[in-house]
Amino acid sequence: MIQNTLPRYEILSDEAVATLDRGWRRIVSEIGVEFILPEAVEVFRDAGQTVEGAAVKLDPDFVLEQVAKAPREFDVQARNPAHSVHIGGDSMVFTAVYGCPFIREGDERRDATMADFENLVRLSQSFPELDSPGGTICEPNDRPLDSRHLDMVFALQTLSDKPYMGSVTSGPNAADTIRMTEILFGGRETIERTPAVISLINVNSPLRYDDRMLAAMFEYVRAAQPVVITPFLLMGAMSPVSIPATLAQQLAEALAGIALSQLLRPGAPIILGSFLSNTDMQSGSPSFGTPESAIGLLCTGQLARHFGLPWRSGGGFTSSQSVDAQAAYEASMTMIPTFLAGTNYVMHAAGWLESGLVSCFEKFVVDIELLRMLQHEFQPLDVSEETLAFGAHEEVGHGGHFLGAAHTLERFRECFYRPLLSSTENFERWQRNGGRDAAVRAGEIWRKTLDEYEQPPLDDAIREELAEYVSRRRTELGD
Amino acid sequence: MIQNTLPRYEILSDEAVATLDRGWRRIVSEIGVEFILPEAVEVFRDAGQTVEGAAVKLDPDFVLEQVAKAPREFDVQARNPAHSVHIGGDSMVFTAVYGCPFIREGDERRDATMADFENLVRLSQSFPELDSPGGTICEPNDRPLDSRHLDMVFALQTLSDKPYMGSVTSGPNAADTIRMTEILFGGRETIERTPAVISLINVNSPLRYDDRMLAAMFEYVRAAQPVVITPFLLMGAMSPVSIPATLAQQLAEALAGIALSQLLRPGAPIILGSFLSNTDMQSGSPSFGTPESAIGLLCTGQLARHFGLPWRSGGGFTSSQSVDAQAAYEASMTMIPTFLAGTNYVMHAAGWLESGLVSCFEKFVVDIELLRMLQHEFQPLDVSEETLAFGAHEEVGHGGHFLGAAHTLERFRECFYRPLLSSTENFERWQRNGGRDAAVRAGEIWRKTLDEYEQPPLDDAIREELAEYVSRRRTELGD
Repeated sequence: MIQNTLPRYEILSDEAVATLDRGWRRIVSEIGVEFILPEAVEVFRDAGQTVEGAAVKLDPDFVLEQVAKAPREFDVQARNPAHSVHIGGDSMVFTAVYGCPFIREGDERRDATMADFENLVRLSQSFPELDSPGGTICEPNDRPLDSRHLDMVFALQTLSDKPYMGSVTSGPNAADTIRMTEILFGGRETIERTPAVISLINVNSPLRYDDRMLAAMFEYVRAAQPVVITPFLLMGAMSPVSIPATLAQQLAEALAGIALSQLLRPGAPIILGSFLSNTDMQSGSPSFGTPESAIGLLCTGQLARHFGLPWRSGGGFTSSQSVDAQAAYEASMTMIPTFLAGTNYVMHAAGWLESGLVSCFEKFVVDIELLRMLQHEFQPLDVSEETLAFGAHEEVGHGGHFLGAAHTLERFRECFYRPLLSSTENFERWQRNGGRDAAVRAGEIWRKTLDEYEQPPLDDAIREELAEYVSRRRTELGD
Repeated sequence: MIQNTLPRYEILSDEAVATLDRGWRRIVSEIGVEFILPEAVEVFRDAGQTVEGAAVKLDPDFVLEQVAKAPREFDVQARNPAHSVHIGGDSMVFTAVYGCPFIREGDERRDATMADFENLVRLSQSFPELDSPGGTICEPNDRPLDSRHLDMVFALQTLSDKPYMGSVTSGPNAADTIRMTEILFGGRETIERTPAVISLINVNSPLRYDDRMLAAMFEYVRAAQPVVITPFLLMGAMSPVSIPATLAQQLAEALAGIALSQLLRPGAPIILGSFLSNTDMQSGSPSFGTPESAIGLLCTGQLARHFGLPWRSGGGFTSSQSVDAQAAYEASMTMIPTFLAGTNYVMHAAGWLESGLVSCFEKFVVDIELLRMLQHEFQPLDVSEETLAFGAHEEVGHGGHFLGAAHTLERFRECFYRPLLSSTENFERWQRNGGRDAAVRAGEIWRKTLDEYEQPPLDDAIREELAEYVSRRRTELGD
């Protein structure tokens, strides 16, 4: 977690913000939002909102009254207190890629397995640039569908001591996650006092929440565990081919869901989520790292601050199929605006490839390098008489060099960012050392990191209780 | 050339600016700047400044009086008026890589030749994202050293109709460039009215201008042709290992040179140049695309505006040896801040590789894609009732999709950025099409672009006069 105290880069005028504000108000009041869980609709009906089947037409001022109950900032505890995080304000929290069915490792692309999941959690634990492995860092396709959430949560809890994300595939799976979190942290009361598991609730955009996500959301919100309420918007498919229209829709969807959360449990911690990119209108495929997504990201940050909400966006996005130049410039095209906009909770910050279908080990390391650079860059610059270092100029004078200056010798170890992956070797030396490009070197780095990984200690009794819970529930689920 | 009307990203407080202002004042007055051309020293002595050998100790207020005579904005004409550019204000002008002795083409790295030079000029002419090929787009090592500047200027003048940069290797070579520019544009008076050739005057940092650069600068300034006065600063080598110290030095060097230009010809057009990165303190090699260079770039923009000067920085910088992920994220780490800072004159915007030793054809195309994306991104967002597109939401409603919506069908061709290089192909299709990564595809793009290149028309008499000038001067120079 870093504190990003540099200025926010905001591109919307007050008038533009007012126009977008009118936009979401009109959508929620005239078109409404569908909630495909009767219990959710009832909550809104009881609160006096207009219900038409599954659709709820909302009074925008009522929505904002509910939204105002959500905390602007909150803490999330890790089992290692040194890894607890703060969500909101100037804090930026970084988590790994989420939800990929495939793995890329070097030139091999294949179905993701539990072994991959575990290795990616180990890497997330090892790199200090990540605050959390996230949750479904890849899909463990070799585990039964009904019970794999247990394996994932157990791996997240035992292979890492950083905060983790919970299962959202159903209400019961969410309940399992919460129960396992209670075991790890010493009971319900402890985690209700300071939440311990974050979950991602995606909107089935446009303007619809599905029943499984809502059921999971109900579990987490009632347990006071934070949910990231995220409209899932690829412009042209799930929203209009217009950035302002998409921003208005994003607000309509997110604010409606946040209002629901506050009706369920006033003061429950939430994060306004954004996942906003566009369709490639030639191929119909999703397109990542685009100019449109960068603009959307900058605007979303400004709007989240307008409503006083902590917010989430990604990440190291790319459509590229391999760890090439495209993968890197598209990741940069999203990650640099992420810092400019001061995103509080950054998902997909390492490992994303191929429009999110692939968790890639080498891309993971490329993204870590990018994160490291930006975490270094977005720190206040100390401009003072001391850092003016006039003495160094006096020492070196005209036409000399500073390599041997006293000022340099005192500071050369720490004065500049030191890369993890990037090479400045001259061509002859680089070629002599095998002419390895960044992807090849990244492969060496993640393997070495895994070799050096040490599992964080965990009380044997707790581990045993977690394992027993997983075992019992697996049996109950018929796997 | 684009107009970047988005906000500038500024990270220096007023107090920090004041501290840096004290910094350069102390350097120029207490240490001074060396000018290794007696004529330059005489100019300063005549103006009442303190001369000690080649060093001139300057009164900072006197420096600023001279600097204030430089125009804040000016035009540079191209022989095709549609390609003329404006320097300063919100304008951003982009030029190709400059000064590389080597070429990379695919996996081959070799000495650059005149044929490479010509092909890179053709590419610069072909891509509208570049406003100018720049000047020494690579070193034509197969041409004699004494006269190759004639070949370069002739190629720039005839293969492109965009503005170009002149030779700075000596006073006489600069004079040749000016004479050829007079021939192309119809005489001295025409180019003195609206300048037609820009030149790069590097400072031999720290705090020294060498004689050859100064002699070239004298020629250009006296002809009212703009010079980019650029401290050449790799922190740790040519400046202290401190960003503020380096910024103060950059101001000291640049403002002293600009003062000289205004003493030579008050009102002569100049550009405050910045070339600021850092040494890798482990290898001693230059390091590009670093966090430090991005911070330096952002600060330089703010300082240039503080002094009311148009300014230059780069570019698609990288230390990488190949067109890999590192090349792309390092280029992005510089190019995105370049837009945030609103650089007026961007050098090295396409083709830079291997710390500037290599002009690379594939990197050229990668950089063009990055430029295209950013030129698209840094445009004002139209937030209005029309772009809210409420009708599209009414049409699609809940849980539908927008691919077939009327709003989409009316706009799908133009609604989003369309990539030149990036691929969104799904994996199977990508693999079936050869599994070509961005570098391979970039190779196909530049070859196709060269195939389709058409030489811009030029009056036969002018071409003949230029050719005769080159031929005569080559003979005079003994080549």
